[in-house]
Parts: sequence; C-alpha cells; structure tokens
Amino acid sequence: MKSEIKQILLDLKNDKISLDDALLKIKKKPYEDIDFAKVDLHRTIRQGIAEVIYGEGKSAGQITDIAKAMKENGQECILITRLNEEKFLKIQKKLDITFYNKAKIGIVGNMMEPDGIGKILVVTGGTSDIPVANEAAVTAKALGNDVMELYDVGVAGLHRLLSHLDDIMNASVIIAIAGMEGALASVIGGLADCPVIAVPTSVGYGASFEGLSALLSMLNSCASGVSVVNIDNGFGAGYLASMINHMEVKK
Amino acid sequence: MKSEIKQILLDLKNDKISLDDALLKIKKKPYEDIDFAKVDLHRTIRQGIAEVIYGEGKSAGQITDIAKAMKENGQECILITRLNEEKFLKIQKKLDITFYNKAKIGIVGNMMEPDGIGKILVVTGGTSDIPVANEAAVTAKALGNDVMELYDVGVAGLHRLLSHLDDIMNASVIIAIAGMEGALASVIGGLADCPVIAVPTSVGYGASFEGLSALLSMLNSCASGVSVVNIDNGFGAGYLASMINHMEVKK
Amino acid sequence: MKSEIKQILLDLKNDKISLDDALLKIKKKPYEDIDFAKVDLHRTIRQGIAEVIYGEGKSAGQITDIAKAMKENGQECILITRLNEEKFLKIQKKLDITFYNKAKIGIVGNMMEPDGIGKILVVTGGTSDIPVANEAAVTAKALGNDVMELYDVGVAGLHRLLSHLDDIMNASVIIAIAGMEGALASVIGGLADCPVIAVPTSVGYGASFEGLSALLSMLNSCASGVSVVNIDNGFGAGYLASMINHMEVKK
Amino acid sequence: MKSEIKQILLDLKNDKISLDDALLKIKKKPYEDIDFAKVDLHRTIRQGIAEVIYGEGKSAGQITDIAKAMKENGQECILITRLNEEKFLKIQKKLDITFYNKAKIGIVGNMMEPDGIGKILVVTGGTSDIPVANEAAVTAKALGNDVMELYDVGVAGLHRLLSHLDDIMNASVIIAIAGMEGALASVIGGLADCPVIAVPTSVGYGASFEGLSALLSMLNSCASGVSVVNIDNGFGAGYLASMINHMEVKK
Amino acid sequence: MKSEIKQILLDLKNDKISLDDALLKIKKKPYEDIDFAKVDLHRTIRQGIAEVIYGEGKSAGQITDIAKAMKENGQECILITRLNEEKFLKIQKKLDITFYNKAKIGIVGNMMEPDGIGKILVVTGGTSDIPVANEAAVTAKALGNDVMELYDVGVAGLHRLLSHLDDIMNASVIIAIAGMEGALASVIGGLADCPVIAVPTSVGYGASFEGLSALLSMLNSCASGVSVVNIDNGFGAGYLASMINHMEVKK
Amino acid sequence: MKSEIKQILLDLKNDKISLDDALLKIKKKPYEDIDFAKVDLHRTIRQGIAEVIYGEGKSAGQITDIAKAMKENGQECILITRLNEEKFLKIQKKLDITFYNKAKIGIVGNMMEPDGIGKILVVTGGTSDIPVANEAAVTAKALGNDVMELYDVGVAGLHRLLSHLDDIMNASVIIAIAGMEGALASVIGGLADCPVIAVPTSVGYGASFEGLSALLSMLNSCASGVSVVNIDNGFGAGYLASMINHMEVKK
Amino acid sequence: MKSEIKQILLDLKNDKISLDDALLKIKKKPYEDIDFAKVDLHRTIRQGIAEVIYGEGKSAGQITDIAKAMKENGQECILITRLNEEKFLKIQKKLDITFYNKAKIGIVGNMMEPDGIGKILVVTGGTSDIPVANEAAVTAKALGNDVMELYDVGVAGLHRLLSHLDDIMNASVIIAIAGMEGALASVIGGLADCPVIAVPTSVGYGASFEGLSALLSMLNSCASGVSVVNIDNGFGAGYLASMINHMEVKK
Amino acid sequence: MKSEIKQILLDLKNDKISLDDALLKIKKKPYEDIDFAKVDLHRTIRQGIAEVIYGEGKSAGQITDIAKAMKENGQECILITRLNEEKFLKIQKKLDITFYNKAKIGIVGNMMEPDGIGKILVVTGGTSDIPVANEAAVTAKALGNDVMELYDVGVAGLHRLLSHLDDIMNASVIIAIAGMEGALASVIGGLADCPVIAVPTSVGYGASFEGLSALLSMLNSCASGVSVVNIDNGFGAGYLASMINHMEVKK
Repeated sequence: MKSEIKQILLDLKNDKISLDDALLKIKKKPYEDIDFAKVDLHRTIRQGIAEVIYGEGKSAGQITDIAKAMKENGQECILITRLNEEKFLKIQKKLDITFYNKAKIGIVGNMMEPDGIGKILVVTGGTSDIPVANEAAVTAKALGNDVMELYDVGVAGLHRLLSHLDDIMNASVIIAIAGMEGALASVIGGLADCPVIAVPTSVGYGASFEGLSALLSMLNSCASGVSVVNIDNGFGAGYLASMINHMEVKK
Repeated sequence: MKSEIKQILLDLKNDKISLDDALLKIKKKPYEDIDFAKVDLHRTIRQGIAEVIYGEGKSAGQITDIAKAMKENGQECILITRLNEEKFLKIQKKLDITFYNKAKIGIVGNMMEPDGIGKILVVTGGTSDIPVANEAAVTAKALGNDVMELYDVGVAGLHRLLSHLDDIMNASVIIAIAGMEGALASVIGGLADCPVIAVPTSVGYGASFEGLSALLSMLNSCASGVSVVNIDNGFGAGYLASMINHMEVKK
Repeated sequence: MKSEIKQILLDLKNDKISLDDALLKIKKKPYEDIDFAKVDLHRTIRQGIAEVIYGEGKSAGQITDIAKAMKENGQECILITRLNEEKFLKIQKKLDITFYNKAKIGIVGNMMEPDGIGKILVVTGGTSDIPVANEAAVTAKALGNDVMELYDVGVAGLHRLLSHLDDIMNASVIIAIAGMEGALASVIGGLADCPVIAVPTSVGYGASFEGLSALLSMLNSCASGVSVVNIDNGFGAGYLASMINHMEVKK
Repeated sequence: MKSEIKQILLDLKNDKISLDDALLKIKKKPYEDIDFAKVDLHRTIRQGIAEVIYGEGKSAGQITDIAKAMKENGQECILITRLNEEKFLKIQKKLDITFYNKAKIGIVGNMMEPDGIGKILVVTGGTSDIPVANEAAVTAKALGNDVMELYDVGVAGLHRLLSHLDDIMNASVIIAIAGMEGALASVIGGLADCPVIAVPTSVGYGASFEGLSALLSMLNSCASGVSVVNIDNGFGAGYLASMINHMEVKK
Repeated sequence: MKSEIKQILLDLKNDKISLDDALLKIKKKPYEDIDFAKVDLHRTIRQGIAEVIYGEGKSAGQITDIAKAMKENGQECILITRLNEEKFLKIQKKLDITFYNKAKIGIVGNMMEPDGIGKILVVTGGTSDIPVANEAAVTAKALGNDVMELYDVGVAGLHRLLSHLDDIMNASVIIAIAGMEGALASVIGGLADCPVIAVPTSVGYGASFEGLSALLSMLNSCASGVSVVNIDNGFGAGYLASMINHMEVKK
Repeated sequence: MKSEIKQILLDLKNDKISLDDALLKIKKKPYEDIDFAKVDLHRTIRQGIAEVIYGEGKSAGQITDIAKAMKENGQECILITRLNEEKFLKIQKKLDITFYNKAKIGIVGNMMEPDGIGKILVVTGGTSDIPVANEAAVTAKALGNDVMELYDVGVAGLHRLLSHLDDIMNASVIIAIAGMEGALASVIGGLADCPVIAVPTSVGYGASFEGLSALLSMLNSCASGVSVVNIDNGFGAGYLASMINHMEVKK
Repeated sequence: MKSEIKQILLDLKNDKISLDDALLKIKKKPYEDIDFAKVDLHRTIRQGIAEVIYGEGKSAGQITDIAKAMKENGQECILITRLNEEKFLKIQKKLDITFYNKAKIGIVGNMMEPDGIGKILVVTGGTSDIPVANEAAVTAKALGNDVMELYDVGVAGLHRLLSHLDDIMNASVIIAIAGMEGALASVIGGLADCPVIAVPTSVGYGASFEGLSALLSMLNSCASGVSVVNIDNGFGAGYLASMINHMEVKK
Repeated sequence: MKSEIKQILLDLKNDKISLDDALLKIKKKPYEDIDFAKVDLHRTIRQGIAEVIYGEGKSAGQITDIAKAMKENGQECILITRLNEEKFLKIQKKLDITFYNKAKIGIVGNMMEPDGIGKILVVTGGTSDIPVANEAAVTAKALGNDVMELYDVGVAGLHRLLSHLDDIMNASVIIAIAGMEGALASVIGGLADCPVIAVPTSVGYGASFEGLSALLSMLNSCASGVSVVNIDNGFGAGYLASMINHMEVKK
C-alpha cells in the first residue's frame, strides 16, 4: 500500500535501511519502456497499490514481459485481470503465478495482508452476477482487505437480503453488483451506513440492453452514498473499495 | 362465402352490376361479415366501462361537444383525462362536471359503485410521483373499485414500505409508480402475490432521461407478475387495474 | 418501539450488552418485526404456484441440484426455462423431467390442472414469434390454465386475425406477441374486452433494433388495457396471465 | 474527353493559359458537360410542379422577397409551408396570398386543377395528428389532386377504419399519419392495394420519444408497399403522393 | 397483376370462360390453414401481386409446404426472399425453382412480363451495397418491370453519378441504396423528377451504427419526393417501386 | 455523524446523560406520516447523517412541514437542496433557515464541525460547472468536512491543473466535476492517490447531449479509484465524500 | 532524477524535511520538470492566436473583467463568442468592442491581417445554417484569413453547388456546414482537394434529433479528407481552419 | 501528391516531356466501369493522392481487378485498407504487393518520398489502440510523410505523456487515438499548437458502447484545434493528416 513507501522512508529515518537501499526500493524511473507498453512503475509511489495488468487484448507473451519488468523493479504483488486459462497456462511456464479461475485474475507474488479499516461486503443480485463479484472480491483481497461475499440476494426475494442485515450494517464498504433492473444498489444504499459502490452487470436480455438498464438505474439511485463504476467492472469496484477501506489521516 | 362470390359473378354476367363494382365487391369480401356491433356491445356490457376522453390537445369546446354526444347516447360516466383547470372552468358552464384537480381528471356523471374482486393499492416511491398516482387512483375509483393509496415509500427507506406489508399482501392489484431508478416495482413484485402494474414516471434529472431509466428498470424487473405501461400513464394503469379487478368467468 | 429501545439502553447501561451491539440493535429495529414467513405463506397458499428456475447461464449440474432441493421440499411442479436440449439430456439422467423442446422449458413434476377463470389466448404476429409464444403457452398451461394458441395472424393480413374474433372476444386474458412494428398489441387491445399482455420480440432486422421498435410501439399503444413485459419474455407473460386468470376474492 | 485535355495541354505549352488554369480545367473536366438546364427543364415541364418555400426560420420579409422573385419568373403556384398567422398578415400586405390556417400553408397564385390518376386518401390515427394531415392534404390539393380526408380512425377502434374500406380500396395513393405506436400504417398497408406513404407524428408522451416510436414502427411495417417520410413531414408526404398520382409513361 | 382478376371478370362477361371456371379461378378461401402459417391467398386479389415468402427463419421444409399450397391455389409467381443456397438445394428437389444467388431470392413459377409505365432504376453508393440492390432488382423484375442497374456511383466521386444523368432523368421510379452517410438519396432526389425510394444499408462501421446513420440521413433528406424503407430492405423497395410503376386509373 | 448516536450511547454508558435523556435523543418512530410524505426519521440512526429534503417539486409549505417534523423529532441539521430564493423567502417566515444562494441549499440548524479524516477537494473543469460544485461543497461542509475548492482547471490548459499538484496529492477525497468531454475525472484519477468521485454536468451543447458525453466518459475512465454519480448531482457527491472522509473502525 | 530523490532521502535522514514532506516530494517528482511556460510560449509565438472567451453562461461583468485582464497582458485581439446583443451593450460601456451581430461574436482589438496560405471557403446547405457559418467566418477572419462565403447550396439542388466548382477547387480549407441529412460534407469532400471541416447543425426537425442525423452522416462520410467538429460549433471550425491555413515548416 | 499532376504540366511546359507523354500520364477517362465497380480515375487529379481501395467486403478477385484497372491507368501507389492476410496471399499471386500486417494495409507500387511540411505524430492512449494507429501511420507514410509513433501514453498516467512534450510541440499534425473515455484528444489538444485529428476507437467494454463514449468525448473537446473522424478510422486520419501536412500556396 501507499504506506509501503511511507515505511521505506520511516525505515530510512530510523536507520533500519541504508540510504542506497531506500533509493533502490523507490523506483528510479517513472516507467520502463518495453516497446509496446509503457509500464507505469511510478503509480505504486503515487497510489501505493499493487500494480495491475489489464489482460484482455494482450498476448500471454506480452503479459509475461510486462509482469517480469514489474517484478524486476521490485513490485511484490501484480494483478493480471481478465486473464483466461489458456494464457495462464502459457504464463505459468515462465512466471510464478496463481490463477483465480472464477475471477479470471492471475496474481504474481502474494496477496497483501488484510490491514483495512473494516470489512468489504460483496453482494450480488443473482447467480449470473457472480463472475463480476469474484473479480471484485479477489481484487480487494489481493490489495489487503477482509472480504465477505453474499450472493444471489436480489430484491425480488427481499427476505433473503434482509436476513443479512447484520452484515450490511457492519460493513465498511459495500460493493453491490446486479444486472437486469439493478435495484439492489438502491435497496442496500438505503439500509447501509457506509459507502456503496454499485456495479451494473451485462446480465439480462431484451431491454436490459447489455447492462444499460442496470447502469441507468444505479446512477438514478434515490439512496445517498451510492456511486457507480462501468458495467461489469468488478476490478474497479474492488480497487476503489480497498482505497476507501484504507483511508488514513494525511499530514 | 363461395355462393356470395358466385352471385357477384352471376350479377356481372347478367349485367346487373358493372365490372368495376364486381371487382370492388370481391376485394371487400373478407371484411364484410365482421360484426363490430358485437365488439362494441361486448365492451359496454362486460366492462360497463365509462367512456374516456383524452383532454390534452383538445379545446374546451371540442371536449364539451364530445362529452355531450356521449351523454346523449346514454353514457353515465365520462372521464376526461389530462384536463387543466382553465378548460374545466369553461366546460362546467355547459356541463355538469366534477374536477379532480390533483389528478387532472374531470368526470361527467357519477363514479361507479365499487364492485371489484378486491382492493387496488396505488403506491409511489416519492412525493413527486403523486400526480401520476392521483390519475391512476381517480380512474380506478371512477370505474368502480376500492382504492387504497400509499405514497412516498421508496426503497431508499425500506421500513416505510415494509411497515405496510399487510396492505401489500391484501391487495388484489397493485399499481407501483416510481421515477428515477424505478426499483419500487421489483421490490413490490417480490413481496406481493397479485398482479403488479408498474408505471415509470418522468420524475428525476440527469441520467433519468425523462423516465427512460425507470422504464427500463421496470421492464427488466426480476420479479414475476410485473408488467409495464407508458411513462406517466397513470390513467392506463388505473384502467387496466380495474379490468383485472373485475375479472369474471366467461361462458 | 419506544419501550424496546429503552430496554436496549438499559441493557447497555447495565453492561448486559456492548456499545456496538446496542448500536446495531437500534439500527435494525424497524426491520425486525417484518414477518416474511407471512409473505411466503401467502404466495404458496394463494398462488400454489410452481417454482421456476431460469436455466440460462446455469450448468446442468447446478439446475439439477436446485431442482432436487425444491423437490425435496415438497414442490410438485418445477419449471426450468431457457433450457436447451443438451442440458436436458444431462438432467434427465438424474431427475424425472419432461422437455418441451419448442418452448425450451423443462418440467419436473406435473403440470397443474386447469382451474382458471377462463381461457388464455396466445397470439403471434408471425411464424418467427412462435418460440416466444411456446414459452408463454407452456408456462401458462403448467400453472393450471386452459390455453388457446393462434399464430401468424399479423396485422398486415387483418382478415386472418378478424376471422378469430370469437376467440378474442371469449378470452379471459390475451398474450399478444409480435416483433417488427408490434402493431398486433394495439389492434387486439382495441378488439378485446380483457387484459392484454404485450410481448415484444427481437424478430426483425434493421430498424427493429433487436426488439426496440416493437417495445416502444407496444408501450405507446393507444388501446387501453394493454401492458408490456420485457422483449422475448414469454415466461413472464405466461406467468402474469395465469395470475390474472386466477384472480379471486381476498378476505 | 481525351482530345479536350490535349487541347488544354497544347494551350499550356503554347502559353495561352497558365499552369494553374490548366490544372483547374483538368480538375473540372468531368463536371463540365453536365446539362443541368436539362434537369430543370425536366422538372418544370413534366411535373409542372408548384415552387415551395419552407417558411420556418425565414422572416416575413425574406419570404415575400423569394415569392416575388418566383412570381416574376412566371411561377403560377407558390406554396409557403410552416407559415404562421403573424407572418401571413405581414406578407399579405405585399402579395396576393391565401392562408390555410390549419395546414400552416400560404399559397401565392392558384391551386392546380386536379388531373391525377386517381384519389389521394389522407388518413390519421387520432385528432392530434390532424395538423400534419392538413399540411399533407393542402399540399396535394395545390399540386392538382383529388384529396379525400379520413381522420381519427386509429387501430384501437378498428371498426371506424374498416367502415371506410371502400375509400381505402379505391384510393390511388394513401397517406397514413399517426403518432404514438404508429400501427395505422401497417394495418392500412395490409388492406390497400396502392402505395402507402407513412408519416410518423410527434404526438404522444413518455416512451413515444417525440415520434421515434411511430417512426420505428412504420419503418418495420410488415406490410409491403409502405414507405416512410420524416416525423411530422406532412408536406413531403403530400408532395410525393402527388408525384405518384401523376405517374405517366416516359419516352 | 390486379388486372388478372379484372381479366377473369372480363372473360366471364365476354363468355370466354364459364361462371364455374371464373369462380374456381377466384380463390375461394381468403387463406389456407397449413397449421404453422396462414398463407394469405387473398392478397393476390387485393393487391394483385405475386405472393412472397420471407425465407429467413423458415426451414426448407416449411418453405416448400407454403409454396406448394400457394401453387396449388393457382399462384403463378412466388418469390422466396432471404433464401440461402443450402435451403434452395433442398427445395429444388421438390419444387421447380430458380435461384438468384446474389439476390438471395428463389422464384417458383415465372417472372412476369414487363408491363409497367416506365423503367425502374436501381442505384447504389458502393459495391458493398450491391446485395441489397440485387434483392430490389430481382424483386422488381419478377413483378413485371424493366429494371436498370447502376452501381458504385456514390457521392464522393460525383462525376460517376452525373455521367448517368440521362438514366436518372428517364427513370419512372428510382431506388437509391446506400450505407455509411446515405447522401446518395438526397443527391438523386434533387436531380430526378420521379419518386425516389431510399434504402439505407448496414454497410459501414463505427458511427454508422448498423445503418442508423444512413437511415437518419435519408429521413432528413432535403430533397422532395424521397421516402424511406427499412435498413437493407431491398425487397420492400423493389415491391413498392413496382407498385408505383403500375399505377393505373381506378374507376 | 453516525458517531452522534454512538456518542449518546457512550455518554449513557459513562453516566454523562440519563437514560431518559438518551431515549429522548434517539428518535422514537422509524418515520412520521404527514399526509403527502413519509418522513424517514430512522435514517439518522442508520446513516448518522444530517437529514436531507430534496426541494425540487415540493412547495414551500410542504418543505416547511417536513422540516418541522424532522426538527420536532430532534434533528439538529437539515439540508434542503435544489431550493430557490422564492421558496426560501416563504420558508424563512416559519423556520430559522440559512440560504446558500449559489449552492441552492437551505440549512435549518447548524453546519457540523469539521471532524473528517482529511480534506475534501472540489475541482471543476470550467466556470459553468461551479453551481454543481457549490452544491457539493456546501453539502460536504454542512456534514462536517474541511473543503477546498479549485475551479476552472479543465484539461485543455493542463498547467492550471498541474500547478495545484500539492492540493491534489494531499486531498483525502476528490470531487471532480466537469461537463463537455468530462476528461477531468480521468486526469485527476491518474494523479491522485485517493478516491475520486466524478460528477458529470449538463454543461455543453450539441453532442454533449445534456451531460451524456461527460457521463459516459467518466464511467469509462481508464484511471482506477474513480466512481460516478448522476449528472449534476453535486449533493450526492458531497454526501458520499463526507461518508468516505468519516470512515472509522467498526467493532 | 535519481540524484534528486537521493537528495530528498538524505534531507529526510538528516531531519531537514519531515517524513510527510519527503513523501509528497517523491510523489510530485515526475511532474515537476514540465516546462509549461514553453507550452504557452509556443502557442503565443507560433500561432499568434487571438485569445477567446466563450460568452455563454458568463455575465457581461465577468466577460468585461476577463477581457480587460487579457488586454492588460498585451493581447491585441480578443474574441468573445456566443455573445448576445444585451450583453454587448453593457460591455461596450467599459470596453472598445466591435459586435458582429449575425455571428454573435464581439471583438476587442483588431482583426488580424490575412496572412494564410490560401483562402478559406465557408459553405452552407441552407439559409438556416447561416448563423453557424457567420460564427465560423468571423472567427477565421479575425484570426487572419481570407474568407469566402457560399451559402444555401445544399445537395438537393446540385447545380447551385457545381456552379461554384472553381471556388471549391481553389480553396485551401473548406468549412462545410449543414443540418438535416448533412450530405453537403461528403459531396464537397469528393470534389475538393483540400481539408474539409464538417460542421453539423441542429437545423431540422423530427428525425434530425437536434443535429444527430447530420453529425452521424458527416462522421460516416465516404469522402476522404473530411473531419468533424461538434454540432453548431462554428467557432471551432473557423479556429481549426485558420490553424491549417497557417501551416508552416517547423525546425 | 497533387503536385504529381502539377509536375507533369510543369515538365510539359518546360519541354521535359512531350505532349503525348503528358497526355498519357494524365488519365483519359474520369472513371473505369468494371462491372461491379466504377473505379474513380479522376480522384488522383482532383485530390492528387494515391488511390485507395477499401478492402473489407470485397473479394481478393475484386480487389485485384480494381487495382489492375488503376495500375493500367498509370496509378503509381495504390493502398488497400482493411486487408486480411488470407486475401493478401491470393492477391500477391497476381500483383506485386507489399503487406503491412499490423496495419492491415497492402500497397501496390511504392510509398511516396516524405515531402511534407513537418512531422506527423501518431499517439495512442493504450496498447489496444495500436492497430488503428498502425493503419494511420502506414497510410501517412505511404502518402509521403515523416511519421513518429508514441503509444500507450493515456491520461491516467500523465507523466508518460508529458515526458514527450517536445515531440508534441514539434509535430505539424497530431493524430490522437483513444478508446474508453477518449480524454487523450483534449489533453493533447490543450498542449499542442498544431491541428489534432482525434480518432475514437472501439476499445473498451460496458458503457464504452463500441466507441460511442470516446466519440462523444472527442466531439465535445474543450480544446480548440481538434476535429474528429469515424470510430476506428485510422486510414481517414492518416489521409487527412497527410493532406494538412502538404498544404501549399494555391494561385
């Protein structure tokens, strides 16, 4: 996390590491030029987060090269999202990588230790929304969060949702994932006392128009404290939830 | 039909009709026997339904003329929807008319006696949806229904809605009216055991796109038993609710 | 509620509960007394409705597990919608299931006996709309309704439709299914004296925009008594039609 | 063309023309021989069509000037469309003009004598569509057509339309005008044996989206022989109907 | 054509055929019930046109059955549109059918003799629009029209189009087919003195949005005399063009 | 804030207040039914936030009634959003209210003391976005936050934005407000290491389509940590920012 | 960069800066060396471009203040776009300003001397597009260009346009402005041998959807060398045309 | 380039070539009719550019025929865009062709020598945008331009872009290519002092709606000097950039 850099500075100040080691640890170059992609190594400094590679549209070879460059620059946790099994099998021949099949996420290095303010609750309206939820959950876990999952509790069977009132009220951040009419976000937004990140999914047919219905629904939520990310963007929700769950006093 | 065409041909051959007349008669044949009197009779007898005049875009004079003609034909209850006060004031000089200001409905004659199967429950998500709800409620009342109104019970404060579970359980038909994200229809659809007519409203701003968000949301409802009418169409919902509430055995 | 909160405060003061538990209890108060058992009881007793599994996106294994659990809980009729033959073949190895190929519906258990108020008439504009109609018809039959089917009677050849005026007149509920311009719903809505459930289909090309044209057309129907469900949602129409056809006096 | 270009090159070589002029001449070559006089001659002789001024967005002064110039060039019938009363009052001070108030059309000169193949039938679904119908009817009359008007015969009351079967079957061209769901065009297209020009109108509310619903509906008409013009484009329909009604053998 | 019926009546009147033969020839039933489709045999009487089967979504077997029923009822020319080669090969084993591969049209029976008022000109903007043009051209030819084809003369190289001014001037009806920006219809509409039927195509990419761009463009044409059919609807354009090209005096 | 209730419980536990006083301070009813509205009195307990009244579409009288009911139930800070001056002048005759004219917010009671984790930075792309920013800023201040405002630093003049890098990097939450192309959110999202709440505005013309362009742009942000609220929803952004800025450890 | 970070670490270690300051400095590093002075210098020196104030949404007072500040900084030509007469009258009391009424542009200072490569040709399809054309033309003139205007030469009367072939072929940049179907851009794009900037306008009705039709049409232009700016964005087109017309060798 | 023709005329004038040779070099016919296509041979004269064949939707045989016709008419450089490897392999058996695999462009003949005013800079936001960038770059190179490529410098990591400020400053024309939120165009438009051609790409998912988000974003760019071409239209951008980079004084 951001505190990683902070920790290096602290260690330096407390004579736990030498100045040269600190310098080595703080990346020298804002990015490494590997021709087809400009790997952003400085983001770790700015945002203190594990580095992320968006796997879709990149070949196994390209992903391997980028991940290697990151690793050589000291990155300890690298997430590869939208990764399919076929590419994973190729990558693992060259890199030590763990594959989370349902979430379509590969992780090079280790998940961070949970050190957030509280728990992140990932909720879905239906069973078809679960792949997006998995992406969110694995992302949040990798970034150092306690994650609780609560699936298939859509508003058409309200008692399923209400029987988990304790979880909803004790969560620090909630990720509400739903397709079709996307009503879940509003209902949870009305119950919870914490930020709710709404993720519309492309689940549905006909007038769901590939997620547009859920997206508009969530944007128009009459509940306060709800904000929205792109359709099917489980990673984005998990990342933001982790950021919120690691809020700390500046200066 | 065969013999009739034979007759036409015979008449043609015998110079009783011209070639053009024969041609026209043959073209019209398939439509000739439609007993539309039957259709209209059906509607009046079975539904005993009041006549309706859509007031928007018609002048006070035009409305008066139409209503008078209906009255003279024995119609006992005439609804004039989307009527504003200005036109009402002009019409009442020539016709005995009651004006329901909030519903923007004028009624010439008397509301019918409630004789439906059960109660119609009209529910809104917010206070801004009330005008549409009034249109639905007055329509349903005029057509002979017990109507119960339950306003401002949107899903963002779910306990307001849930504290009326009995009303929802006991209704025979529910009209669920909401703008913005339109989640109300799905939540009620999941709780009720009767048909739910969803009415999206144009209440909202920004990405509500004049009711499109609520419309799509309601069409995608994951709850069964929910169907949808046009945006702000309180009259249509009230009319259909009355029709369902007056279901009876045919033949 | 007041005295209950008093008790919570008293318990807190007397160290019987922790501060956090007190806070949670107070937050949950308004939701605590909701008797959802009542909801479920209502639904089961009054509707005696068969359970439904939405088959799309679920594996044969998942479907089998869910259906088994339902059956073990005493459910006598289980509908599995959007089921393809491949999954059916796998499921039938483990469960006694009947497959309605055209409707893509599998039924575990028996269809209910017809006990509705009257007949449900399922009408389509063209031959390409028939799969959606089959879904609606099988659903309605399974839920205990007399169903009559009338296909390929689109408005471009009006006499085909008009030659079935009696069927239209005698129906208790009509499901009007059409793609392209969706005019069928308005024409039937104008002829019938019963509720009409309009189902837009994705049949068409070009400016039909995957069913959008028919959907808008049906929502704007100038005929009263027409409501609309999602594009291609034959199941939803059949379910709602059955609900209306089983209206009965409450209390 | 070759020899002409040779001449240009020769002229260039002989310094009769500059290099730039030569370049321009060569660039223009393919467009030079277009005999637009022929186009205009065709249009005037064959169609003898009245000139048209689109009044919207032009001042009374501008319209007067344009009309005067046309008149001085011998034009015997000038249509001014989308004209309001205010502008008309100003124009009539300077020009001999007849104003058709409902159609919002002013005519300088005389309507042509009816000399078409048959009758043009103008039909509307509702009373609110009448202004568009008036525009179409006055246009067609001015251009020399017998016009028959049939208003408020929308498909929700099919017998109103079917009671005019004779008129529909005897028409040479039909202009079908409707807002909301626009089903009129398909129904008439299925009944008639002549070209049907469909005019969607912006009449409606909610999901009619300013005429989009009727437009899509008409474009998707399952009836053959139907084509569509822009929303509210009564003039365009009247003009095209007249063109079709004046078809004659060429060459 | 329509005059076919007229001819029968005339023959009857002139004692060329017996009354019984006349009766036999005029179809007895408005439609033949072959279960899955109500073949409209009466349309020939009303519209006097060859019968059409929309081939998409129908199996070779279904098409064969429908065509046979038509043929047995005396239909002399049957068009099967949107037919692929695979189905054709199956159909031709049971029926005498000619396949127009580029137009994807099969014809059972013979094309009608050209007997229209003048020529129909089919024009395309690009080479990718040609399949739609072929559908229009074959349709028009089958229905008894002289058809002239002019392809790849889009507005970006205007001289290609303008060098055919004579053809444009001499046409009785023009079918203007274009994708992308659809400007062809306006340009031709401004040059021609006959009805122009515009057909937007789905040719293009990106912001052409599957033909929406061309569709809107054509609907907004500033040229008079232009009307529009559905995206890629070559058949509809050919059918309507033939109808216009066969205009004749009624009564 | 939420801790308000927590504080009461703590005070009770520590004998700083009596049980009766605690009971008095904690609201007795979940909501108050005042005819046209069901005022949600439990939200403060659930979400621990000042109560909010959405002023648009409510009369001055209605607003006054709702605010009074809240006040009588012990609410110390009530925000009235989308309030215009005219209504304010009427309300202030009956209630002690402060009006923030640019933000269109009225506050009954007092703004809370800043007690958040860090600073909330409100940034706009242009000067026309400032009203939305004011709504966000006043909301956040009222809910107890230090707010810093940075206006007219759109991406077309990047140095204006980059000259405030310190503010961006020191913020705890950033609200990025922009119309037109909405690029501001992505650029800030890439620079900041804290949650960014993006607010699209309806500022722009033509293809901005009332904020749709900015909305889509923000939803597609390639920067992580960005989420989006409804178009022009300054209040929602301010409320969520405050919620994030008051994150605290649960249990 | 390395040594600078080393210095920061050294300073931290030697207690010259605090840990927080070190963290901030490291985060800001990659942006610190951006020489924006260079950017602004570039723009001023190379383009010598007049400053522009977007007048809409700004008060006369605000505009006056901004313009004064610019003038005091030595700006010799200041354009104020989307200015109405009312504001102009107020501004001219405090500033020496020329108002171009049709273009809605005010100019403080002098128009630049024409010094471009060639001529800029501004063309419109209709008379209603002229206000947008005026905005483009005045902008281009003010920025130092020879501008030629050619209005009302839409493609429906192609000879009007073709009679100006010389102007089209001699232009250095062409601004093609049209509403409705926007075909003008493609036709000119096919004729000209210079960059064409297409400006869709909101002129039209019905399916023009406020300029969307023309916008899509222009984006899909089959002619090469055409690019598009926002609907009604005359200023943007004039500005870009001037930029292109002042192309010169760099380095 | 255009000067090709100019050069021929100059050579003729200066007696470097004979009149017959000049005539031979200048195409004889405005277009060549090869059955399915009308090859525009005059475009080279009008626009002085290498001829282009849009390969998508054309067979290898058709492409070969068109290219041969062009070559026989003296065309020295022919671009075939959207060409896949399979077609290339067939074409190269009959024609001397070079294939640029990433750009999907085949070139018959030779690339022109760079002779533009300055450099064209091609920039992409991400790695997935590179294929479109390749199309633009190869097009520009073929047409005689120095091209510089700068990929994966999206706005979410602004320092990557800013570290190339010099390249941006020194470019004569910039092609900014981005999908998702398309913010790149605005940021570059604000930094550069040269024309920026924005190319939205279909890269993205969910609410990117196949490039619509980036398209709208770029059209609404608040930076001046930016214009837009169709989604994924790399060729169009490269062509226009070359045209601008070859601006020269006329007359």
